[in-house]
Amino acid sequence: MTVALVGAGPGDPGLITVKGLQRVRACDVLVYDRLVAAELVDEAPADALRIERDHLEQDEVNDLLVALGDHHDVVRLKGGDPFLFGRGGEEALALAGAGVPFEIIPGVSSLASVPASAGIPVTHRGLSSAVTAFAAHDVERLDAAALARVPGTLVAFMGLAGLERLAERLIEHGRPAATPAAVVSAGTTARERVVTAPLGAIAKAAEDMPTPALVVVGDVVSLRAAVQRAGQRGAPRSREIPRAASTTAAETSGSRFRRSRRSFGPATPTAPIASVRRSKIGAATPASPSSASSRSTA
Amino acid sequence: MTVALVGAGPGDPGLITVKGLQRVRACDVLVYDRLVAAELVDEAPADALRIERDHLEQDEVNDLLVALGDHHDVVRLKGGDPFLFGRGGEEALALAGAGVPFEIIPGVSSLASVPASAGIPVTHRGLSSAVTAFAAHDVERLDAAALARVPGTLVAFMGLAGLERLAERLIEHGRPAATPAAVVSAGTTARERVVTAPLGAIAKAAEDMPTPALVVVGDVVSLRAAVQRAGQRGAPRSREIPRAASTTAAETSGSRFRRSRRSFGPATPTAPIASVRRSKIGAATPASPSSASSRSTA
Repeated sequence: MTVALVGAGPGDPGLITVKGLQRVRACDVLVYDRLVAAELVDEAPADALRIERDHLEQDEVNDLLVALGDHHDVVRLKGGDPFLFGRGGEEALALAGAGVPFEIIPGVSSLASVPASAGIPVTHRGLSSAVTAFAAHDVERLDAAALARVPGTLVAFMGLAGLERLAERLIEHGRPAATPAAVVSAGTTARERVVTAPLGAIAKAAEDMPTPALVVVGDVVSLRAAVQRAGQRGAPRSREIPRAASTTAAETSGSRFRRSRRSFGPATPTAPIASVRRSKIGAATPASPSSASSRSTA
Repeated sequence: MTVALVGAGPGDPGLITVKGLQRVRACDVLVYDRLVAAELVDEAPADALRIERDHLEQDEVNDLLVALGDHHDVVRLKGGDPFLFGRGGEEALALAGAGVPFEIIPGVSSLASVPASAGIPVTHRGLSSAVTAFAAHDVERLDAAALARVPGTLVAFMGLAGLERLAERLIEHGRPAATPAAVVSAGTTARERVVTAPLGAIAKAAEDMPTPALVVVGDVVSLRAAVQRAGQRGAPRSREIPRAASTTAAETSGSRFRRSRRSFGPATPTAPIASVRRSKIGAATPASPSSASSRSTA
């Protein structure tokens, strides 16, 4: 039998991959983290064994996967991506060491998807062509000098608890206190909340934000206002898994799509392309960071 | 109407998100990149307009999305994640500036998924608790001193053409020449190829690797052998989209999509658009691998 290490994505259950959902729907045993969306746990077969792993140490999880993988098709469902702060490597090594076949099915990491949900592209031409993601649960052990100096955007995982000290250390080592920063809590879910402020004020601005939260530091944060000005839809109101991916609701969704197509008619790109105005990218250049923070529920 | 900026994932079409696939299946117009899996392009409705964007400049793509988004449900399908070296931010700003509603549906970035497919976790307890991803198409403009010093794993996007110089500059600024490094070409697909070598020898070892390729530098590369020893399944042999995500009329709709592909073929761009030249990406030259390197087809 086999163990699939599957990334569940950042929170919105519709952001699991097609292949990952397929494995969940076919498993004998589902071993999942507390932060994984309940809707995805529900997608396992009715008679599948469900094991929440949060009261287990990592070594115990490894042993469990090895033991179960010998006889069952196991899905190890983890928030985000299994190999980006997901400890998937440790589980993969344990399985490999024990000779248990496994496969890795990556997921959408919070790294870019959570900032994106808040209207922040972690890379952007002219502003940032690099992004450094780091685990910030132990702020004093970070090489703050190197992190302060590396070009581009910083994304801190598990950085909310020590945010004041993290900001202090980055500023001490040369990141300007005026650098735009954001904290995004429960990104991509209906509970998403966003706070933005200059780096020097972000800890105070975010003091009542709940975990899980991602900290973003860099000029790209200043794009948020423009990205959200007119267009971006907010976080999903419903946490349903989209119909199109559900085998059971297939005919329904199929006919719904066909109906919608009849009413819209076939698309034809004709005159509009030639006549379209140049987009107003100029209007979106980063505003100078103010000392005031902004707060919103996306 | 609306524009969905959708990440197609790293190559394997089964790694699109459930929500992303739903949008593709319901669109009027699909604007897609050349590197997006053909199977995903085939998932658009038979009568949807398909536009390959690779002969268009970014400004033209922005204009196209604005023009089409006014009247149609448009999916802009991009490799990887739209907001991580995907220029999704530029498109989002153009749409926001023009008042066209849009949504961002993230995708699985190559950042961690491509190394994972090659058996390399970009973070791993005790080896790396940070990862820096950067665009390396212009090696001389990189802040190599800062990149050499930042802790953890380095992942270079578009770094294959200038790999020799990139390695030189990192070594010059303090990364040991013995640091494990890898080049992963066409990661997560059936054409995946992997080369590993010390940083000082990686350019020579990867001389004939084809694009798209990701460069990984860091101690985590040394885990590959152990991760792959017993267990990890290779890249998907089939590029089919897993059944679980298909509608129940899978066979029917499948054949409909195949028919549509034959009859429509690639979308024909209009004259002014077709006259735009796309800059060529440097091609890899064949040569024999260095003895210090290992090479495999995953």
